Amino acid sequence: MAAEKITSRAKDYSQWYLDIVNRAGLAENSDVRGCMVIKPHGYAIWEKIQRALDRLFKDTGHVNAYFPLFIPKSFLAREEQMAEGFAKECAVITHHRLKAIPGGGVEVDPESKLEEPLIVRPTSETIIWNTYRSWVQSWRDLPLLINQWANVVRWEMRTRLFLRTAEFLWQEGHTAHATQQEAEEEARRMVEVYRHFAEEWMAMPVLVGPKSEGQKFPGAVYTLCIEAMMQDKKALQAGTSHFLGQNFAKAFDVTFQNPEGKREYAWATSWGVSTRLIGGLIMTHSDDQGLIVPPRLAPVHAVIVPIYKTETERAAVLEAANKLAESIRDLPLREWLNYEPVTVRVDDREQYQPGFKFNEWELKGVPVRVELGPKDLAKGACVLARRDLPGKEAKEAGVPLTKAAVRIGEMLHAMQTALFERARKFREENTYEVNSYDEFKKKIEEPGGFLLAHWDGTRETDERIAAETKATIRCIPFDRQKEAGKCMVTGRPSEGRVVFAKAY
Amino acid sequence: MAAEKITSRAKDYSQWYLDIVNRAGLAENSDVRGCMVIKPHGYAIWEKIQRALDRLFKDTGHVNAYFPLFIPKSFLAREEQMAEGFAKECAVITHHRLKAIPGGGVEVDPESKLEEPLIVRPTSETIIWNTYRSWVQSWRDLPLLINQWANVVRWEMRTRLFLRTAEFLWQEGHTAHATQQEAEEEARRMVEVYRHFAEEWMAMPVLVGPKSEGQKFPGAVYTLCIEAMMQDKKALQAGTSHFLGQNFAKAFDVTFQNPEGKREYAWATSWGVSTRLIGGLIMTHSDDQGLIVPPRLAPVHAVIVPIYKTETERAAVLEAANKLAESIRDLPLREWLNYEPVTVRVDDREQYQPGFKFNEWELKGVPVRVELGPKDLAKGACVLARRDLPGKEAKEAGVPLTKAAVRIGEMLHAMQTALFERARKFREENTYEVNSYDEFKKKIEEPGGFLLAHWDGTRETDERIAAETKATIRCIPFDRQKEAGKCMVTGRPSEGRVVFAKAY
Repeated sequence: MAAEKITSRAKDYSQWYLDIVNRAGLAENSDVRGCMVIKPHGYAIWEKIQRALDRLFKDTGHVNAYFPLFIPKSFLAREEQMAEGFAKECAVITHHRLKAIPGGGVEVDPESKLEEPLIVRPTSETIIWNTYRSWVQSWRDLPLLINQWANVVRWEMRTRLFLRTAEFLWQEGHTAHATQQEAEEEARRMVEVYRHFAEEWMAMPVLVGPKSEGQKFPGAVYTLCIEAMMQDKKALQAGTSHFLGQNFAKAFDVTFQNPEGKREYAWATSWGVSTRLIGGLIMTHSDDQGLIVPPRLAPVHAVIVPIYKTETERAAVLEAANKLAESIRDLPLREWLNYEPVTVRVDDREQYQPGFKFNEWELKGVPVRVELGPKDLAKGACVLARRDLPGKEAKEAGVPLTKAAVRIGEMLHAMQTALFERARKFREENTYEVNSYDEFKKKIEEPGGFLLAHWDGTRETDERIAAETKATIRCIPFDRQKEAGKCMVTGRPSEGRVVFAKAY
Repeated sequence: MAAEKITSRAKDYSQWYLDIVNRAGLAENSDVRGCMVIKPHGYAIWEKIQRALDRLFKDTGHVNAYFPLFIPKSFLAREEQMAEGFAKECAVITHHRLKAIPGGGVEVDPESKLEEPLIVRPTSETIIWNTYRSWVQSWRDLPLLINQWANVVRWEMRTRLFLRTAEFLWQEGHTAHATQQEAEEEARRMVEVYRHFAEEWMAMPVLVGPKSEGQKFPGAVYTLCIEAMMQDKKALQAGTSHFLGQNFAKAFDVTFQNPEGKREYAWATSWGVSTRLIGGLIMTHSDDQGLIVPPRLAPVHAVIVPIYKTETERAAVLEAANKLAESIRDLPLREWLNYEPVTVRVDDREQYQPGFKFNEWELKGVPVRVELGPKDLAKGACVLARRDLPGKEAKEAGVPLTKAAVRIGEMLHAMQTALFERARKFREENTYEVNSYDEFKKKIEEPGGFLLAHWDGTRETDERIAAETKATIRCIPFDRQKEAGKCMVTGRPSEGRVVFAKAY
C-alpha cells in the first residue's frame, strides 16, 4: 500500500489530490453516478468536523431537527429563484414500486406512478418553510433557530471527490426571526462561526464577506461566505450564510402576530457547510508525502510504532508503548478537543515492518509519530516526529519517556498554529493588487492567486470578467480598506477592491 | 400549550401515543406522504441515542463510513430474497431534471430519463457489498467492521410517527468476516450490544433471541432480535442483527485469498436500530401526564422553575437558581452519561406562570424538576420532584440548597433503575404460559401480553397462527428453559416455548 509514491503537487496537482483521497483511505467513487463512498478515515474526519461545529451551533442557541428527504415538485416552483437555481439538477422520484419481471429481474411498476413527482432535497428551504407555517403564530414563537445534519443531492455533471458530488453530507441552518435586523445579525453571526471553525479548527485562513449579486444563493437577498486559498492558488468557497429576507415566508405564507397584534411575514436566514470542507482541509495542508490533518480534527493524534526483533524485545517495547499511550490519553486536552478523547494507537500489527507503518501513518496524516525500540528503551527515551515539518526538522530523538506525553501535547498545539500560519503566509504571498484589466488577465493565468481589483459593482461587469477570464468575484471582504478607485474594466467609480480568483 | 390534558392510556392508547408525540414536541407528519418531521425535542433524544450507541459500536471495534443514498435497480435484483422483500416499497428515481413550464411551474424533463432507474436505499446490503468487492482481497483485509448512520426509505402504506414511516433514520452495521464462526459471533455480539443499550440506557427490558424462519430479514440466514413489551402489552421489535451467511458475497462476488492461498467467499452480518426506538421509549415509560425519558437519554436532566412576585424576589431567586444549576452541572455524572454534559435549564421565561412551566416540563419528560421560591430561599432550601413517581410521592420539600445537587444526582440514578424495574415487572405480569390453542386464542385477545407456547418449529404453523390470531412469534429467547412439549396447534414435538404476541 505505501510502496508507491503519490504524484507530487508540482507534477500534477489534480492527480496529487486524488492520490491523497485514495491512498489515505478517505473516499472513492461509487458505481452510482456522481455519488461517493466516504471511507472510514474520511468519515472519521467528518465526525470531528460535525462535533466541533455542532457544539458551536448549540453554544449560539441552535437546536437540531430533521425534515423530509423528499420535496414535492410544486414546492420548488413556489420560490422563483430557487426553481431556476435547482430545477436542472434534481433527482426526481416518479414511482414507488418495482415488480418482478417473469423470468428474472425487476422493473419499475407503471401502476405505481406518483400523482406528484417528488424531488430529493437539493437544499431544504422549501420543505422547512412549509413546516414553519404551522410553527410560527406569534412573535413569542420566534426566533426559530434550527439546524439539520443531512444528505442532499444535486445532479452535478462533473464531479470530484468531496469538492463536487451528486450526493453530499452537510448541515443546513434555517432560522426564522421577527425582524429584519435580527435575521441579518444571525446571518452575520453564523458566517463568523464558520470563520472561527475554519481558522481555529481547520487551521484554514479565510476571507469573510458578501458575495457579489451574481454569485449569491438562489433565493437569497444576499450571501455571506468564507473563502479559502488552496495550494494551487485557486479559491474554495468553504461555507455560506444567506439573508433570505421574507422571500420564503411569502412563498410559504409564514406570518406571525407581532406584539401590536398585526400579522407580519417572518424573516429568514439559512447557512451551510458540507463534506466539501474535507476537500479544503486536504488541499490547504497536505504535502507530497500524503495527508496532513490539523490536530484538533485528527481522528488519531499520535501513533506509537514499536520496533523490535526478538520476542523479549517485543514484550518490553510493547509494555512501554502501552504505558506511554495511557499517559498521552491522560493529557489535559479535552477542552481543546471539544471533549473528544485524545486518541493514540499502538500499531502492534505483526504483518508489517516499521518502515511500512511510518509511511502509512504519514499518508494518513497522523500529527505525531512515536518510534520506540530497544535502544530507545535502554535510554528510557523515544523518538518523536511531527507530521507537518520537513525531513530532519520533524524529528526529536532522545525524548525521555517520562516527558514524552507532555512534549506531544506541546507538539499538537504547535502544529495547529503552524499549519494556520503557513497557510496564511501562503495566501498573503499569492495575493496581489492589480490596477488594470490587462494586468489582471495576465496575472490570473500566471502566477494566479487572489487578485484585488476595483470593480464597478454591476452584475454585467462581474459576468463579463468571469466569461473572459474564468475568474470570479469570490468575496467582498468585510475588512477591506475603503479606497476610492476606478473599475479596471469600465472605469466607473469603485469604493474598494474586491477579491477575484479562479475557483473550485 | 399545556392547558389541554392529553388523552389517557385507558381511554385510547393510540391517541395517547400521538398526543405525547405531538404535545411533547417530538415529531409531526409532514406534507410529504409518510415522511415525518422530527422536531427539536425528539431529535435531541435521537442524538443521545446515537451518541450512546456509537460509543458502544466503537468500543467493540467498529468504525463509521458512508455509502450512497441511491442503489441501481439491478443491484436489488441480485439477491433474490432482498428483491422480494423490498421491491414493493421502493422510491424510484427515473429522471434527473425538471424544466420550466411556459407560463409558470416546473415539470419533469422527459429528456432527462435515466438509463437505469435508481432506488432510494431501503437498506444498504447491496450497495455496500458491491463496494466490499474491491476492499476485500486477502484474509488480511478482514474483518471489515463498518457502521453507517443514515436515512432510509420504505414506501409504507400505513404509517405511524416513529414506529413506521416512509423515511426513517437509523444505523446499519455491515461486517465481513473470513469465517462463518466469526460472523456468527459478530451477529450475537451486536444483538447483545442492543440488549445492553435497551436495558442500561433506555431502561427498556428486552427478550433476546432468534426470530422464526418466517419473521427473518430478507436475505438473512437467520435474524436475532431484541423484543420489548409496550404498555398496551403489544410487542415492539426494537433491533435486529442478521447472520447473512455468504448470500451477499456470492451475489456481489466478494472473495478473499485465505492463508492457504485459496479464494473463499466472505461471511456477512448486518444489524440495525432506528428512530423507531423513540416510539419504544415513549410507549415503555410515559404516563397520562406526558413523556417520561430515562435520565441517561434525557436532553435536559433537570429544570429549575423560579417562583417570585416582586422584582427583588426575582433577582434573589434567579441568583440562587443559577448557582444551583452550576452545582448540578458539576455533578460527577459524565461517565454515566457517556461524557455528555449534565444539562440543566433555569426556566426564566417571563411570559409564562410557574404552573404552566411545571406542566410543560412534565409533558416533555424532564426527570427532575426543582421549584425555588422566596419561602424556600428563606430556608435555604428547594423542592424537588421526580418525574416518574406519582403525586405526592414525587415531591421532596425542604431539600437544603447545599445538598440539592447531590440529591438530584441520586434521583437520576434511582429513576433510571426504577423505570427499568417497573417495565420489567409489567412485562412479567403480562407474560403467560399457555398450553392449548384454544386458550391461546382467548388469551391473546384478553388479557393480551406475551404468551409462551409450544410450537412445532415449522413455517407453516407459524403462518397459520399469524393468520388466525394476528399474533406472531416474536422471539425464541436464548435463555428459555429446555422443556419438552407438544405444539399447541399440531401436537408435534417441541423443545421449548417460544414467545407470541401481537406486535407493532
